[in-house]
Amino acid sequence: MTKRVLGIDPGLLHTGWAVIDTAGQTRKYIASGVILPKTTLPFAERLVTIFRGVSELCETFSPDECSIEITFVNKNPKTTLILGHARAAAIVAVANRNIPVFEYEPNKIKKALTGAGHADKTAIDKMVQILLPAARPKTADEADAVAIALAHTNMTRFI
Amino acid sequence: MTKRVLGIDPGLLHTGWAVIDTAGQTRKYIASGVILPKTTLPFAERLVTIFRGVSELCETFSPDECSIEITFVNKNPKTTLILGHARAAAIVAVANRNIPVFEYEPNKIKKALTGAGHADKTAIDKMVQILLPAARPKTADEADAVAIALAHTNMTRFI
Repeated sequence: MTKRVLGIDPGLLHTGWAVIDTAGQTRKYIASGVILPKTTLPFAERLVTIFRGVSELCETFSPDECSIEITFVNKNPKTTLILGHARAAAIVAVANRNIPVFEYEPNKIKKALTGAGHADKTAIDKMVQILLPAARPKTADEADAVAIALAHTNMTRFI
Repeated sequence: MTKRVLGIDPGLLHTGWAVIDTAGQTRKYIASGVILPKTTLPFAERLVTIFRGVSELCETFSPDECSIEITFVNKNPKTTLILGHARAAAIVAVANRNIPVFEYEPNKIKKALTGAGHADKTAIDKMVQILLPAARPKTADEADAVAIALAHTNMTRFI
């Protein structure tokens, strides 16, 4: 049975997304891209751009599940708070369509892809290239979204 | 000309809301309440409860504008991050219906109501009672939402 996964790497400036099909051991790259809310818009409208963008993705690709990273409070709590808003705008768009949202800690995503929770970006990119050669992400946010979707397929494959 | 304002005090446990009509010097209490997402639900579904609740309020009351407090990073950045998610779920519901969202710093709300940016809760409750005697908020979140809506009418009355 094929399962379609939407991976999201949220952000107020760039929200990366990727769609992957998975069936047993096989995975197929479907599409990926970035939602770019105009920086000249008021904050509320930038959040709505993310919400509408992700809603449209759900409409277009009908994913069965969604995978998203858990945000941790980092050195800059203000930036984290803004990221939390962007993340919620994406989550609400998915969950409002009754699509289950799976949230993963960053090290769990790294481990699911490479076997190491502290793998660096190059190791992750390499694994993505091996597992999904058709994916040619043009930006870091798109690449992260592909990795987040892929990690989810790795984690649920054995459940 | 009468303007209808929706005030929101967001929170993952309780999201207070209040609807007020304003025309010149007069203000009229319309309704208020609290959205209570079930704590047993997954995080994404709790956010969706807020989103759907606020969407329904917009549908029922057709507000012209929305007033919401700006969240600051406090002593507990983790709690602030969760609040940011709840806040975004409410903002997206309003802005998705093309209703303008006005964001105010907490001290601006206090000042608009009492004249003092550091007014305590009792002083604010007193002013709300004077300006809007019909409002009888049953909870602190509902009272805060009434104050947030009222403060907005005070701030925009002279623009």
